[in-house]
Amino acid sequence: MASFWKHNFSVSLFGESHGPAIGVVMDNMPSGEYIDTEKLKQFMRRRAPKKGDPYSTQRSEADMPNIISGVHNGYTTGAPLTAFISNSDALSKDYSNIAKLPRPGHADYTGAVRYKGFNDVRGGGHFSGRLTAALCFAGSVCGQILERRSIYTGAHIARIHKIKDKRFNPCGIEREEIIALRHKKFPVISVKKGEAMLEDIKRARDSMDSLGGIIECASINLPAGIGSPIFDGLENSIAHLMFGIPAVKGLEFGAGFEAAAMLGSQNNDEFYVDERGHVKTRTNHHGGILGGISSGMPLIIQVAFKPTPSIGKEQNTVNLRKQTDEILNISGRHDPCIVPRAVPCVEAAVNIALLSHMMDYPNF
Amino acid sequence: MASFWKHNFSVSLFGESHGPAIGVVMDNMPSGEYIDTEKLKQFMRRRAPKKGDPYSTQRSEADMPNIISGVHNGYTTGAPLTAFISNSDALSKDYSNIAKLPRPGHADYTGAVRYKGFNDVRGGGHFSGRLTAALCFAGSVCGQILERRSIYTGAHIARIHKIKDKRFNPCGIEREEIIALRHKKFPVISVKKGEAMLEDIKRARDSMDSLGGIIECASINLPAGIGSPIFDGLENSIAHLMFGIPAVKGLEFGAGFEAAAMLGSQNNDEFYVDERGHVKTRTNHHGGILGGISSGMPLIIQVAFKPTPSIGKEQNTVNLRKQTDEILNISGRHDPCIVPRAVPCVEAAVNIALLSHMMDYPNF
Amino acid sequence: MASFWKHNFSVSLFGESHGPAIGVVMDNMPSGEYIDTEKLKQFMRRRAPKKGDPYSTQRSEADMPNIISGVHNGYTTGAPLTAFISNSDALSKDYSNIAKLPRPGHADYTGAVRYKGFNDVRGGGHFSGRLTAALCFAGSVCGQILERRSIYTGAHIARIHKIKDKRFNPCGIEREEIIALRHKKFPVISVKKGEAMLEDIKRARDSMDSLGGIIECASINLPAGIGSPIFDGLENSIAHLMFGIPAVKGLEFGAGFEAAAMLGSQNNDEFYVDERGHVKTRTNHHGGILGGISSGMPLIIQVAFKPTPSIGKEQNTVNLRKQTDEILNISGRHDPCIVPRAVPCVEAAVNIALLSHMMDYPNF
Amino acid sequence: MASFWKHNFSVSLFGESHGPAIGVVMDNMPSGEYIDTEKLKQFMRRRAPKKGDPYSTQRSEADMPNIISGVHNGYTTGAPLTAFISNSDALSKDYSNIAKLPRPGHADYTGAVRYKGFNDVRGGGHFSGRLTAALCFAGSVCGQILERRSIYTGAHIARIHKIKDKRFNPCGIEREEIIALRHKKFPVISVKKGEAMLEDIKRARDSMDSLGGIIECASINLPAGIGSPIFDGLENSIAHLMFGIPAVKGLEFGAGFEAAAMLGSQNNDEFYVDERGHVKTRTNHHGGILGGISSGMPLIIQVAFKPTPSIGKEQNTVNLRKQTDEILNISGRHDPCIVPRAVPCVEAAVNIALLSHMMDYPNF
Repeated sequence: MASFWKHNFSVSLFGESHGPAIGVVMDNMPSGEYIDTEKLKQFMRRRAPKKGDPYSTQRSEADMPNIISGVHNGYTTGAPLTAFISNSDALSKDYSNIAKLPRPGHADYTGAVRYKGFNDVRGGGHFSGRLTAALCFAGSVCGQILERRSIYTGAHIARIHKIKDKRFNPCGIEREEIIALRHKKFPVISVKKGEAMLEDIKRARDSMDSLGGIIECASINLPAGIGSPIFDGLENSIAHLMFGIPAVKGLEFGAGFEAAAMLGSQNNDEFYVDERGHVKTRTNHHGGILGGISSGMPLIIQVAFKPTPSIGKEQNTVNLRKQTDEILNISGRHDPCIVPRAVPCVEAAVNIALLSHMMDYPNF
Repeated sequence: MASFWKHNFSVSLFGESHGPAIGVVMDNMPSGEYIDTEKLKQFMRRRAPKKGDPYSTQRSEADMPNIISGVHNGYTTGAPLTAFISNSDALSKDYSNIAKLPRPGHADYTGAVRYKGFNDVRGGGHFSGRLTAALCFAGSVCGQILERRSIYTGAHIARIHKIKDKRFNPCGIEREEIIALRHKKFPVISVKKGEAMLEDIKRARDSMDSLGGIIECASINLPAGIGSPIFDGLENSIAHLMFGIPAVKGLEFGAGFEAAAMLGSQNNDEFYVDERGHVKTRTNHHGGILGGISSGMPLIIQVAFKPTPSIGKEQNTVNLRKQTDEILNISGRHDPCIVPRAVPCVEAAVNIALLSHMMDYPNF
Repeated sequence: MASFWKHNFSVSLFGESHGPAIGVVMDNMPSGEYIDTEKLKQFMRRRAPKKGDPYSTQRSEADMPNIISGVHNGYTTGAPLTAFISNSDALSKDYSNIAKLPRPGHADYTGAVRYKGFNDVRGGGHFSGRLTAALCFAGSVCGQILERRSIYTGAHIARIHKIKDKRFNPCGIEREEIIALRHKKFPVISVKKGEAMLEDIKRARDSMDSLGGIIECASINLPAGIGSPIFDGLENSIAHLMFGIPAVKGLEFGAGFEAAAMLGSQNNDEFYVDERGHVKTRTNHHGGILGGISSGMPLIIQVAFKPTPSIGKEQNTVNLRKQTDEILNISGRHDPCIVPRAVPCVEAAVNIALLSHMMDYPNF
Repeated sequence: MASFWKHNFSVSLFGESHGPAIGVVMDNMPSGEYIDTEKLKQFMRRRAPKKGDPYSTQRSEADMPNIISGVHNGYTTGAPLTAFISNSDALSKDYSNIAKLPRPGHADYTGAVRYKGFNDVRGGGHFSGRLTAALCFAGSVCGQILERRSIYTGAHIARIHKIKDKRFNPCGIEREEIIALRHKKFPVISVKKGEAMLEDIKRARDSMDSLGGIIECASINLPAGIGSPIFDGLENSIAHLMFGIPAVKGLEFGAGFEAAAMLGSQNNDEFYVDERGHVKTRTNHHGGILGGISSGMPLIIQVAFKPTPSIGKEQNTVNLRKQTDEILNISGRHDPCIVPRAVPCVEAAVNIALLSHMMDYPNF
């Protein structure tokens, strides 16, 4: 299914960027869970572009969800949980060329072939980054249920372009670090590096170009034993959801691609029992997952985002009707870098995967 | 589901490393497709360790599949296609300690928690790399059906430890290059780099250690328009299957993590129409996939494998029953590097994903 | 999944009877199909109770759907198709007792146990017959796509209480018969029998009781070869969807339960070739399906509906909090017989199943 | 998927009637459950035709399963549980005509269209009733897990042709009644009615004809609250699996089709609290399920089987190659009535559905 994912509960996204609304249906969620709407809004504000923020898009989006089923008196009922997010600030006029001049790096061409010309191309239609607002709603609901069980997920910008942030300590991340990141205006660990990144984004904007980056995400306090081997592990589910976020081109767990350059004696994480009787590992190259199943150590992942395809610079493309080469200029409003906005999206994907696998766990 | 994956057709793996056999059931495969058993064996031989090969495991495995349903007179019938692979050379005595001394980097500990102590730990049980033989069977069947439609998938070792092979040309890979790789004794593009890698593997073996690596895989002649956006794209399916291969810790498409360091103007692939009227891109940072859908350009992926956890060196672990630290020595036969054997496994995962999405395509 | 069904495309129902709206998300529908909104409304009007109709419920429902995604300029885009139906005429005050006094024949008790007391009981919450409006929307969309391929589905009341209507001719049903039924005020073949049924319903209403019935449904012009054996046949899908309609307690195909009393020589339908070279059967006890796959003969099914549980008569129940027996009087507005309204719901379930299996068919 | 079903765990059937073996893979079964192989064999013997039994088929089948994965030291490991059943007594020569002369009532014609002529027709191929042996294995495993939790499922022949057996008492069925039925040579409640049925079967055999029938199945001690509304209830799952058994043409729950002729005041089951504080109903027309969810009262279903299509009498069919009418005589060995053998198959389908929904239940 295109916009549907399921493992115990299902998440079904719908809506077009320039239609009346986007939304999500979450079916088979556990009942009796309290949904804090203020926390929901805080989560989603981290994704919504801020008005007057020169580093982000000009287009304003309210992005506040409206729950229309599945919650009664603040608690989940067990019936399908549906949320709507109105598209209030959509301007159609920017996208009239797309139907015949596919934008490089976008899904205009591939979508046109796939849907025999019938896909709604305005603003990217169903391919739009806007749908990540619905994903964030689902991820926030799952996050609240996980946090009630002490499991916290937090992400930060690990890198924008060539500038790198400090990394999480894979063997010990405190809940306070994660909470603190949520309240920062720009989600980085090192303030100094953050300022350098913002300068770099400004330069890209001024030159009508764009930047990519990497997001690091961690989850702490996940019990051991969550997940299954082969096709149904935590990595499979996280990967399946993560590649549903537009612009994601790479994903790694723990030491990831670096592990490929290590010796086994370097990469293996030795077990020991801590003072409270918990089994732990002295290093965490495995990133919290062994054989698809959680070990109890912090989950550590990194997600690579390609630079935003929409740039103001002139580009070469083809005219699909005439089958000739043609020059393209994309006017309109462009995000020079979507990585800061993608931080809650990455957390959302991880939360959805974790909660779904937690629901296999006895006494959840 | 642990060992089950489905998109149009399903692939269901079963069996334990030290049980009588492993196998796979593939349900809803297209009917009327000829299955060449000689090609099947060639595909699977690339995975099977070679007797007398000092760079590989000592354990010999026949690994030849026995088709017991779904094929009649050489053609698929449309009914479930089931294959068995006997475990002929299994020795139990090597693994008696695992139940209480979890091996670092393995799923012994996580599996014990997950399955409440009831998992069959011998040889890794259902977590074993041996199940990749069944995955390869499925991937070879899918590959034959794809090749009948001119779609070829080929992989090579891009890197072992710190030694890198030459890369594919992302804008033009010939069918002959892919076929040639299949017949090489050691699956690399540059013979010289291959020799350096084999020396490195030997050194690791002699020091009772192990090495990781990266595999690059490409698919050519995939028509444009295969896949769907959001959760049902080619990346989602390939990722979901790929992380089912043991030791995989990272996956990237096209420029992948490198794209994170590029400018949009560098990363965007401009469209043009070639002399035969086909839409192409001048560069291929997108790796053949845009918005989850194929563009017609070669699919390019890289998969990161951590070094084999089983090493002869002494390691520290815990005694799960006594809850104390303890030293572990893993005797027995160890692969110093499973990357060469993983090459057909990576192709298999890609083939399964591609065929399943091709079956959405009109007039498949 | 509770309110989710999938075979090629998915149908995901959401909403509560007394929430702001109910709706459906249909994901992976074929693109390029024209959706006639007037036909949509006609289909759904057959389900909506008519104001001033003494044989039906007093509660008025607008029940006209509002498509918010997946359709552009009248054609499906291939992206998720979402429809909303507002709950405009909901009165909460009728249902205050349900939380502790479960109504016999309803899901109050079972739902309370299932959802640990958190289910939204007002008006039956997510169990309400109101959700069938969303099912009808989905069924109408599927029906339009099928009719474009000459496949027509039509149903009528075969029986209410002890009064039986004339049956379809299982070997030959004309498209005109099906169209005619849709325009009748009361969906029966024999006008005389219809009048007798309406009298019977009136008597039930006056005595504060209710009536059950049977609906017969047929589909014509379905090509042979649609469906699969074992768990994925037309019967499995139709049955799975049909039992999602509240009050359904039985389902049979072709001769159904009557076949149980036949000899093989009586029940077998002999094949012959008609004048146009089509393979047909002389009788149609198999109801158009053999081995889960369509034969090309009309699909014939019958669905049994229990009498509406909500009756005005005094009933005995338990007080769940006090754990004592207690008398219950259900005030409010009661349908004496929902069978006429269920006719389009039965067609909807059949249409969804047929279209989903048609999408396996080459050159759909 | 054709032979695949999933709700928490999956059941994947494979094999052809005249291939080397048939079997099943059950993935995601709970771990730590003891599997009694003697009980397995007893369950499956109830399905296997008895040598020298003039009322059954002449073909002997060993039908004893061989577990090749997922069980270690008698306990389920949580890894996929796979069983093989060899086809030891298959004779090919009986079926040479089928490819061009479809047998009335069989899936020869529909299967040929579906699989473009490539399906393996020998003995019905994958459509064969023989696959029910694999279904029975799965049902027996599930039954053992349910019985460990006091939930017992038992079925009997309610009717063969026009002869009816005594029915279960829907408000009170003892475990001993169910156990007793399993040990009877002919699974009926009334010995006298059973003798009349056997005479009727003999008459059918002598006249080269066949008989259909109805099976009644009950499950006791199911806790309340198992199942979900709309598409994911007990009825949906039981129906989906039940129509996977060949020859099933109808299914009803509780009063079923009889409820269609009742008044609401007659059909509603009133609640009361028994002396042990349990909520019960005074009558059980609802058959233990309300709104898709169990009520705690016995589950009661009836399944209608059409008479076996294979009869020795001469029949009319078509020659698919010449497109002309032709006479058909089916030589070989024919079951005059498969209903007695179908009794454990019906229990199997119910057990699989019940266990899968039980796994949603907290503290399972």
